Amino acid sequence: MSWEEIARAKRASRDQAIPPEWRLPPGQVPDDQVNVIDVPAKCGILTTRELEITETDAVVLVQKLRSREYSSHEVTLAFCKRTAIAQQLVNCLSEIFFEKALEAARCLDAEYAATSVPRGPLHGLPVSLKDCFPIEGTDATIGYTAFANDPTGEGEEAEITRIMRESGAILFCKTNVPTALMSGETYNAIYGYTSNPYNRALSSGGSSGGEGALLALRGSPLGVGTDVGGSVRIPGSFCGLYTLKPSYGRFPTSGLRDGMEGQETVRNVVGPMAKSLAAVEMWMGVVLKSQPWMSADPDCLPIPYREVDVPKKLCFGLLLDDGIVKPLPPVTRGLLQTKAALEAAGHTVIEFHIDDPLYTDSQKYALYRSAAAYVINSTLTSTKEPWPRGMEMLEAMANSDSQSSATVSDLWKAQVKRTKYAKRILQAWAATKTRTGTGREIDALVMPCTPWPACVKYGLTYDNYTSLWNVLDYCATTVPVTHVSSSNDIKPEYKGRNGTEIGIWKNYTPERLAGAPVAVQLVGRRLKEEYLLGVTRVCDDALKAAR
Amino acid sequence: MSWEEIARAKRASRDQAIPPEWRLPPGQVPDDQVNVIDVPAKCGILTTRELEITETDAVVLVQKLRSREYSSHEVTLAFCKRTAIAQQLVNCLSEIFFEKALEAARCLDAEYAATSVPRGPLHGLPVSLKDCFPIEGTDATIGYTAFANDPTGEGEEAEITRIMRESGAILFCKTNVPTALMSGETYNAIYGYTSNPYNRALSSGGSSGGEGALLALRGSPLGVGTDVGGSVRIPGSFCGLYTLKPSYGRFPTSGLRDGMEGQETVRNVVGPMAKSLAAVEMWMGVVLKSQPWMSADPDCLPIPYREVDVPKKLCFGLLLDDGIVKPLPPVTRGLLQTKAALEAAGHTVIEFHIDDPLYTDSQKYALYRSAAAYVINSTLTSTKEPWPRGMEMLEAMANSDSQSSATVSDLWKAQVKRTKYAKRILQAWAATKTRTGTGREIDALVMPCTPWPACVKYGLTYDNYTSLWNVLDYCATTVPVTHVSSSNDIKPEYKGRNGTEIGIWKNYTPERLAGAPVAVQLVGRRLKEEYLLGVTRVCDDALKAAR
Repeated sequence: MSWEEIARAKRASRDQAIPPEWRLPPGQVPDDQVNVIDVPAKCGILTTRELEITETDAVVLVQKLRSREYSSHEVTLAFCKRTAIAQQLVNCLSEIFFEKALEAARCLDAEYAATSVPRGPLHGLPVSLKDCFPIEGTDATIGYTAFANDPTGEGEEAEITRIMRESGAILFCKTNVPTALMSGETYNAIYGYTSNPYNRALSSGGSSGGEGALLALRGSPLGVGTDVGGSVRIPGSFCGLYTLKPSYGRFPTSGLRDGMEGQETVRNVVGPMAKSLAAVEMWMGVVLKSQPWMSADPDCLPIPYREVDVPKKLCFGLLLDDGIVKPLPPVTRGLLQTKAALEAAGHTVIEFHIDDPLYTDSQKYALYRSAAAYVINSTLTSTKEPWPRGMEMLEAMANSDSQSSATVSDLWKAQVKRTKYAKRILQAWAATKTRTGTGREIDALVMPCTPWPACVKYGLTYDNYTSLWNVLDYCATTVPVTHVSSSNDIKPEYKGRNGTEIGIWKNYTPERLAGAPVAVQLVGRRLKEEYLLGVTRVCDDALKAAR
Repeated sequence: MSWEEIARAKRASRDQAIPPEWRLPPGQVPDDQVNVIDVPAKCGILTTRELEITETDAVVLVQKLRSREYSSHEVTLAFCKRTAIAQQLVNCLSEIFFEKALEAARCLDAEYAATSVPRGPLHGLPVSLKDCFPIEGTDATIGYTAFANDPTGEGEEAEITRIMRESGAILFCKTNVPTALMSGETYNAIYGYTSNPYNRALSSGGSSGGEGALLALRGSPLGVGTDVGGSVRIPGSFCGLYTLKPSYGRFPTSGLRDGMEGQETVRNVVGPMAKSLAAVEMWMGVVLKSQPWMSADPDCLPIPYREVDVPKKLCFGLLLDDGIVKPLPPVTRGLLQTKAALEAAGHTVIEFHIDDPLYTDSQKYALYRSAAAYVINSTLTSTKEPWPRGMEMLEAMANSDSQSSATVSDLWKAQVKRTKYAKRILQAWAATKTRTGTGREIDALVMPCTPWPACVKYGLTYDNYTSLWNVLDYCATTVPVTHVSSSNDIKPEYKGRNGTEIGIWKNYTPERLAGAPVAVQLVGRRLKEEYLLGVTRVCDDALKAAR
């Protein structure tokens, strides 16, 4: 089969998994309707109770499943229906297995009725996984036609898949990703482009963009993505979600399908995504309770969940502009709104500067790009699938002999530089202690996720605000703040200091990005996830109090 | 200058740092006297009080320095004298700076007299460092003539050097290493070979072999080495010492001079070496108390010292033979003696098997050897220094174009295999839970460090018993058990199952290895150093009780 035939067949089989009664009538949602966030609630496919269920937070759902107020079957059915609608609106899914999910939920309900013992801490809760988490009986193509029609076998699931199952979660779909997970937007030769439900002319972010779009539409109460350069945080920010990108070693990555398998210089991590911070916290607790370091993943650190005591008065660092790409007006407004809310709640905010913010970008070739280009090229070639749009740089590397052969000794040199850079940033972070007035260093750094609230399709040209923290392995969260406003986000006189920035600013108008969520990124010290979540909760409370 | 001239000048300047009155009279120790362990006590250079000081354990010394029973100056002077003798006996030093040390001790004594506040937890204690720890004003050649005459500048010391200083330690010498730290024996073009003080026809081990020999002769109460394949444990075992090889991230490696700078696949770690387990424990506590993750080293994990509660009844795994190289009779006797002692103390011992013990060896080319060959070759070439004996394989790689170009994508493939292997070993370890009878998995694994108690010079041909745990990043200790015995260690009829093993066994006689210490290796789970030290203490107590 040609790659086009493979792609067509995969799409058709996915689309057929949506029952006719869950299909939106043709014309009900015009193609040019950009904001579709209210469609699930208004389209009439879900019952009132199903709407109530799907609009309930994951943490409350878990309680109601346990108290039998809801059965897992009805909860799963409600989310399957809503997910089917989401798919039709923004094309957010890769694999659909609603039937299996409903059957699993029925079994779980029967088991619970018989034993009164819940399966685990997520008993009966539907959980969506990004395509790269192998699930038995489904493909994990990560957007490659080369990986299609090769379903995951018994015993080949990712450890996160296994932990979710053992915790009682119901898996029901996998969500779309960019080819090889190598983009901050979500599109590939099999499934095409995943749009942003707040404005379908915009990107849902990537590489966990299918999750982002699905969760925003409440097609799933809790999702799991991965992040090696911003892939949890960019869709989190573009789709108005709470997310956590941990440091490497907290959550298992064993068994993941990866576009850069074996790449260990900048580690790919697994992170939760949801409409509430409570759901993110819950997921972290569940995964750590499974003690993944014991036998699931040799790279997991033996660091159990640590209770934290967040002080009353905090001091936040603030980074408004990395000096390379100044964020667009809605993002800056979101940052300043966060600053004001924190100050109103009695906290302080001080400036924080990133030394050499382009460092990561300049090192990426030796760190991983050259080998990534080689590996992606080999995979694409096996079905003659063309290089996707937006990866021209990697394509050029793969086609140039002189470029595609970074050696291990080149890598070592780049790693030496990276470690020196990491030490400088570490010391700058520690040095804030003299400026905070709390006796501690900054409790977290508030900064942009990207220069955009959400970018136009194929418009993501800069990811240093997120990828920096992958290179340095700090943990980070996203917090939704507001939405783009045509009155508050007018374009100032600003041209830009370099080609990338000029490109980002030249076509900006608030109208083009209408409806897009605006989020901030909170960054915490390496491996201090519990503390960062505690501080993120303080920030979120302050923002809510200020509204 | 030619490399020979550089080497000659470096040797001469080192030797001149030993005052004439500390020199052994010619002929007092005949060249053919193999066991020199008693020479420092008998040669008459140290006073009775100096002998008492140098034979006092590091932990007791710290107490006596604090209580002013000893001054730092007299302790430092005693160890400088003893170190000078050690150097003349086994050639264990690279850099000598006794004068500076004595001056620093004098200042510390004055400060303490004035303030009554000790400088830190190691107040006044002499500590020796392996050559790779940069110390201001001295070279860190790691055996290369290329790195000679380039003393470490202000602010360029390793973080461990800084922590030792801030803890009040007195630095007084650096110890010899093999070229680029790339051998399990200690010799290089500048300083030549470091012999084993229990038998000068034997190796002191490596790459921290200078430390090993010096500590065995009690020229230093506490030393610090590094270990990327066995470099703390091999000299620990050959020289009858307690050592700890931690998992990566517990102790800072920032600022170390390394033969494979930037190599991150198998991480080089820093570990303490001493004549007592208590000294090893003390060092660990001191370094962790400095919170090295805060600003010293971005790769240090935020894991403070964790108090452990070691259960009364333990179960140990035992590995007598990895199936590739059966240890020589003294090592097997040491293992069985340990087993008997543990059982006599009420613990149990079960068999533990290593799946595919040669795995690490087969992967080392892609993991680091190819790039190491390239880097070492570049450094040697700069002074036309020839490749050292024993590195013929790396030399051949460096001289072969086809071999010296492992690419980053080759590395990724090797890393994928390594991670799969690590998961198998992790699961095998966790699976012992069903066999221990304690309700836990094995508390530690008892196994050989090397096939030899100590090998003849240039005879180290196999290091998988140690390097395995570097590749997998488990922590490990060494525990001295006994010495080679001509009556108990007679050669059985055994030929060997392969060339390496045949080579090791064919020339074995207990007489050839007379006097050599016999030690065992204890291995613990990744990042469980406190627990492993607790279990090592139980094992050591059992061995002492059984004597």
